[in-house]
Amino acid sequence: MQNKNYPKEILSIIRSNSAPAELREKLLNYHENDLADALTALTPEERQKLYPILGIEYVAEIFSYFDDAEPYLKELPSKEAAKVISNMDSDDAVDALDDLEEEDKRKIVSHLDEDSAEDVRMLLSYDEDEIGSSMTTNYICIRKGMTIRQAMKELVRQAGENDNISILYVVDESGRFYGAIDLKDLIIARSEDSLEKLIVRSYPYVTDHEKISACIDQIVDYAERSLPVLNSDKELIGIITASDVVELVDNELGDDYAKLGGLTGEEDLNEGVWDSVRKRFPWLIALLFLGMLVSSVVGMFESVVAVLPIVICFQSLVLDMAGNVGTQSLAVTIRVLMDENLTGTKKLRLLFKEMRVGLINGALLAVLTLVSLGIYIHFFKGYDWGQAFLLSGCVGISLIVAMIISSLVGTVIPIFFHKIHIDPAVASGPLITTVNDLVAVVTYYGLAMIFLIDVFHLA
Amino acid sequence: MQNKNYPKEILSIIRSNSAPAELREKLLNYHENDLADALTALTPEERQKLYPILGIEYVAEIFSYFDDAEPYLKELPSKEAAKVISNMDSDDAVDALDDLEEEDKRKIVSHLDEDSAEDVRMLLSYDEDEIGSSMTTNYICIRKGMTIRQAMKELVRQAGENDNISILYVVDESGRFYGAIDLKDLIIARSEDSLEKLIVRSYPYVTDHEKISACIDQIVDYAERSLPVLNSDKELIGIITASDVVELVDNELGDDYAKLGGLTGEEDLNEGVWDSVRKRFPWLIALLFLGMLVSSVVGMFESVVAVLPIVICFQSLVLDMAGNVGTQSLAVTIRVLMDENLTGTKKLRLLFKEMRVGLINGALLAVLTLVSLGIYIHFFKGYDWGQAFLLSGCVGISLIVAMIISSLVGTVIPIFFHKIHIDPAVASGPLITTVNDLVAVVTYYGLAMIFLIDVFHLA
Repeated sequence: MQNKNYPKEILSIIRSNSAPAELREKLLNYHENDLADALTALTPEERQKLYPILGIEYVAEIFSYFDDAEPYLKELPSKEAAKVISNMDSDDAVDALDDLEEEDKRKIVSHLDEDSAEDVRMLLSYDEDEIGSSMTTNYICIRKGMTIRQAMKELVRQAGENDNISILYVVDESGRFYGAIDLKDLIIARSEDSLEKLIVRSYPYVTDHEKISACIDQIVDYAERSLPVLNSDKELIGIITASDVVELVDNELGDDYAKLGGLTGEEDLNEGVWDSVRKRFPWLIALLFLGMLVSSVVGMFESVVAVLPIVICFQSLVLDMAGNVGTQSLAVTIRVLMDENLTGTKKLRLLFKEMRVGLINGALLAVLTLVSLGIYIHFFKGYDWGQAFLLSGCVGISLIVAMIISSLVGTVIPIFFHKIHIDPAVASGPLITTVNDLVAVVTYYGLAMIFLIDVFHLA
Repeated sequence: MQNKNYPKEILSIIRSNSAPAELREKLLNYHENDLADALTALTPEERQKLYPILGIEYVAEIFSYFDDAEPYLKELPSKEAAKVISNMDSDDAVDALDDLEEEDKRKIVSHLDEDSAEDVRMLLSYDEDEIGSSMTTNYICIRKGMTIRQAMKELVRQAGENDNISILYVVDESGRFYGAIDLKDLIIARSEDSLEKLIVRSYPYVTDHEKISACIDQIVDYAERSLPVLNSDKELIGIITASDVVELVDNELGDDYAKLGGLTGEEDLNEGVWDSVRKRFPWLIALLFLGMLVSSVVGMFESVVAVLPIVICFQSLVLDMAGNVGTQSLAVTIRVLMDENLTGTKKLRLLFKEMRVGLINGALLAVLTLVSLGIYIHFFKGYDWGQAFLLSGCVGISLIVAMIISSLVGTVIPIFFHKIHIDPAVASGPLITTVNDLVAVVTYYGLAMIFLIDVFHLA
């Protein structure tokens, strides 16, 4: 972005000793996000001087752009901080409050104005993974039965306080959701038209207790500037804006990504070492103990290795390939499972498809392995051609078997966890690795024992 | 979502034999996305009958919600299809055209009206990873120097054709970007106010040739309903809407996710088996040959295994742990690298942090391993306590060394690929696995050879 220098410009304007009115005028020409960036570079005293000049509403908007509002809220007396929070969009207010420690949060909430306190309490009453926790109460709401002129007047009145004006929400006499009007349609309508005609009655909506992960795909599909959130009585209680959707998608996908990478949550550069340790350790310890299980199974084949040590050369090859195929299937399955409407037939189809992909990839790789390993063993390990191809054939067959089973395991395990309502992205990784290792080890050493040693007496 | 039944409702309305005017009236009460869903369930003949009733503009909106518009565009004569495309937002038009085969695309483009053809050509001129390819040309644009009343009139005039009205973009006499006006501010302004005062002059913007991956984070930070796209002459040529941002974030993260899972691109349920094979095979074949490299290194330790077969039991344990730690570091590093403004100092800090995390996790696991493996080896493998702890100590030390080095490798390799402008998410996986396997094998068998066999004569 070319405009990285905006925060720098802002800094020099703030430090230019302009008269307050002029300063304010100049600063209003910047985006709140750039102002937030600039504010972080000021001293606390400079910030304190600036706030009254900007005015509480503008300060509140800027505060909603802080990644972590805590240090800036703590600089203010609780009453002032409460005023800032009261002027924020309700979801931003809750985000900012969540940055604080319990004690500070309680203090500020006690000073919130009545409306904001109610909104904040409502949003905090939802679980983090429910739609209700991410909605905002800043929207334009009109009663059905108005004329176009009345609706326009109401819009102008409410627009002063509410940012999200692209869609006007219509409720009936008892506050139940009645429909939505595209602001564009209202603007181009003639004042003698009927408002009722502009209302889209069967407008899509989400309900407050819906799980975000369960409906995020559909929300994205609607590609709307906002969607209404209804409670179980079909009353309109908030909206989800497009910016909220960006955040939700970012969180959902970022979470899946982190879990696939073996982290329990997303990390960033500024995270402390111990936080990172805490996020990564659970997965590692699960793997350690499951790995010991694999070790004891490998131990059963000690006798094979004792008489035919060359087989250990290719253990890591078979295990790595099985592991990778399993991860590929897992990655695909987790994304597919995000669609809550997946039927049993579709899951079976996925399973069958993964198996075929595993078979095809396994067969292709097996042929490659047979040829190249055979040549390698003959020339570098001094076995004759027949023995070399017996060995490489054993690796090749293990690869096919291990890859088919790994594809299956990488699909079945996440489907199973999903079924019993355990997050498949977290639980599947270590289990799949272990099962795949076990399958690969048993297949590989089993084949070596039976074919190479018992049948062909290669030892 | 409770409203999954909307498409069903729509279907029964369409098939209810209502008069055209009544039918249209009823259908206008649904969201275009639900209508698109319903349309896919109709027969081609039913669709053909429906289009004239809905009208071209509405049909175009519905078409932009199809996941794959090809079958529906192909049903229409090229001239009709061109009319539909002409009425779409420019970015949706390009998406729909991209669904078609070259020949059909060419035919339809030749029938586009002049304005649309120009917009489509412009968008197609950008690389897929450039901002310009994702922008839309549907926005409200006014000249500087207007009065509030004139601006309002212009808004009403342009709103008929343009969906994205939340922000009005202002250009100067020569078409250069001058600033932006929040529609809300315009609506609540008094007609005697000056328009100039409403214009945010230093509004954030992106440029058309910017790489999406390089600026997506910043775009998300602004959380705006739309951002202007400028060319190198600072002329306004399009906008990026919040829905575009959702799509971009989804693509960027989905891509990283897929690559971390060892796929070359995102897959979905409907993808053919051979497409999946093609997406997964490249990674597997790279791993196969790198795995053979590891095999030949393991081969150098055949003598160790021949005299002390128990060591093979724990090879998979050490390798798996090293692999997992490497993947964790890789996952974190790739996300951190998305920030293009990362300085060398920050990269060093990341490296240092990853090393410490590796050390701490490694040390914790090593202690656990030492104790539990020692007990296991004593009781199940029949070694005396001293020998058992020598063996488990060897595994423990290998774990620490392997995990520190894996953390390093998992950080350095993606940073290196990023430096030489190769996508780190694609290239890093196989290489990191291989390097980590090599390090783990050499450490583990090396320690076993030196300590267990040469020093303590455990064989």
